[in-house]
Amino acid sequence: MGPHPAVAAIRLAVRRVLHDVLNHHLAQDRHDPPLVLVACSGGADSMALASALAFEAPKLGVRAGGVTVDHGLQEGSDLRAAEVALRLQALRLDPVETLTVQVGKEGGPEAAARDARYAALDAAAERHGAAAILLGHTRDDQAETVLLGLARGSGTRSLSGMAATSGTDGRYRRPFLDVDRQTARKACLMQSLPVWDDPHNTDPAYTRSRLRHEGLPALEKALGKGVVEALARTAQLSRDDADALDAWAADAEAAVLDDAGTLDVAALYALPPAVRRRVLRRAVVAAGAPAGSLFARHIEEVDRLITAWRGQGAINLPGRVGVRRQGGRLVIRQG
Amino acid sequence: MGPHPAVAAIRLAVRRVLHDVLNHHLAQDRHDPPLVLVACSGGADSMALASALAFEAPKLGVRAGGVTVDHGLQEGSDLRAAEVALRLQALRLDPVETLTVQVGKEGGPEAAARDARYAALDAAAERHGAAAILLGHTRDDQAETVLLGLARGSGTRSLSGMAATSGTDGRYRRPFLDVDRQTARKACLMQSLPVWDDPHNTDPAYTRSRLRHEGLPALEKALGKGVVEALARTAQLSRDDADALDAWAADAEAAVLDDAGTLDVAALYALPPAVRRRVLRRAVVAAGAPAGSLFARHIEEVDRLITAWRGQGAINLPGRVGVRRQGGRLVIRQG
Repeated sequence: MGPHPAVAAIRLAVRRVLHDVLNHHLAQDRHDPPLVLVACSGGADSMALASALAFEAPKLGVRAGGVTVDHGLQEGSDLRAAEVALRLQALRLDPVETLTVQVGKEGGPEAAARDARYAALDAAAERHGAAAILLGHTRDDQAETVLLGLARGSGTRSLSGMAATSGTDGRYRRPFLDVDRQTARKACLMQSLPVWDDPHNTDPAYTRSRLRHEGLPALEKALGKGVVEALARTAQLSRDDADALDAWAADAEAAVLDDAGTLDVAALYALPPAVRRRVLRRAVVAAGAPAGSLFARHIEEVDRLITAWRGQGAINLPGRVGVRRQGGRLVIRQG
Repeated sequence: MGPHPAVAAIRLAVRRVLHDVLNHHLAQDRHDPPLVLVACSGGADSMALASALAFEAPKLGVRAGGVTVDHGLQEGSDLRAAEVALRLQALRLDPVETLTVQVGKEGGPEAAARDARYAALDAAAERHGAAAILLGHTRDDQAETVLLGLARGSGTRSLSGMAATSGTDGRYRRPFLDVDRQTARKACLMQSLPVWDDPHNTDPAYTRSRLRHEGLPALEKALGKGVVEALARTAQLSRDDADALDAWAADAEAAVLDDAGTLDVAALYALPPAVRRRVLRRAVVAAGAPAGSLFARHIEEVDRLITAWRGQGAINLPGRVGVRRQGGRLVIRQG
């Protein structure tokens, strides 16, 4: 008799990623066994991930380790991290390490915690020479991320959710992006793995928690049960679309740009609006405007120098970048 | 003292569209006053639209008329249509006409009603020689349409909502896509216009009604008040992106297609996935597969003939279309 379907599902998802990691390792002409780390909070998703890694890695000649991050944000978080580390050791992962981080304030509590976490994970990967770090984000997390992007209203890239592979050298892997949270939870139950429920996940002070417990259920009630799956599919399609348009914009930028760094208005005008606005954004960021402070309305104003020219003056953008039309060209300068 | 801000907002929105209609009319070398019809259900959105048209049209030398559709789906719908027609006449619109339609069953009740309605509106436009028909869809309707598209999970095009201009010769115009429902309602109130609330709009049997009264409010509670605006902006950005990618796919298709109608695999492989899948979709539809029965998983299977070739046989698609790889080419045939 094989394993429970939920356990089989999480193992298959991890096996696929390990195959891929192994192929990349061999392609670099390395024949030592690669080390794969799992980042584990002790919650059901990442405990399921850790258990599947522990099961699959030895069969493929992969070394499996685990890390857990102590964000130091709650009383007793150090004790909990130590407990998670013990659970990872019980799965025969080796090395196992607790990463203690200092969470700053920049960008709000969720962003600051994320930044601190990834910096610590990057450092751990370097220190241990890990080929990959597995992250436990599920299809449900992906759906929530798409909705958060939708709320920004900034288009296709912001709808593309989390990538299956990201970070330096594609270090971060998300094997569970097609696995739902319920399956991960069930797999823990079937394997009698103790899991820890982060109180933040149900705290209505957090946007993601409100989305998970109120927003998404209401949307499912209105639109039917397939919403999470549809959102996850939207992420993949949006990512591919955004990649293709970015590639087009990079090519188009090279074609409209002259040696003096000015852009040809007639050539810009001939581009589809979606591509033209991406070219303008690239050029303005290259001139020194901080990407994070640049909104769609800024780019639209620059676009009107091309599509609705009536002799308007220079457009002033964040980062002291100015754009003006001079003859048949756009001049973009920081000053 | 000027009009109330809500009344000013709806008039501005209509004035912009009338200017554009007038320019198109003149560009066709027609110097007679164009006729613009408003499609009016008697609800707040389209009554506000009718009132703004009645106010703005005479100032621009545009003739303004109105039509209302009797779907015959509810007891007394003929009486209500007659009442709406009287209200349109009271606004001094001329001509005013009631269009009685037979609603079929194809595609479900909402789709069948919509098909019947647009067929009748098209016929009315032809009969009266109208330059445009104004539709009262608001920014809130647009947000709902984006969420309905999101639930399909079929990508950027399905997130692009309703176009500001659509139909034969760009006949349909939606002046209120940037106006919210609350503004339209307020404008009716300020002008003492009686409005009719369609009971379908609050009937939880309808997906759109559930979305309006439960789904969107819950999403706003989780994500904040800007959700409707963000969804409307997503629609515009997604439409531009989908247009650009469709244009790229049309060019790419011409480049990979030979005289015998087969496609070059190496050239397809070099395209970004988002473009390649669109090229495959176009080619398969051109070969006779009905677009409506063609899902992402079909196209992905065809794509694997290019990206994951291991000698697999012909792929069978809806509409008896078969795709096989032969040498370095894809052969797509109906048979």
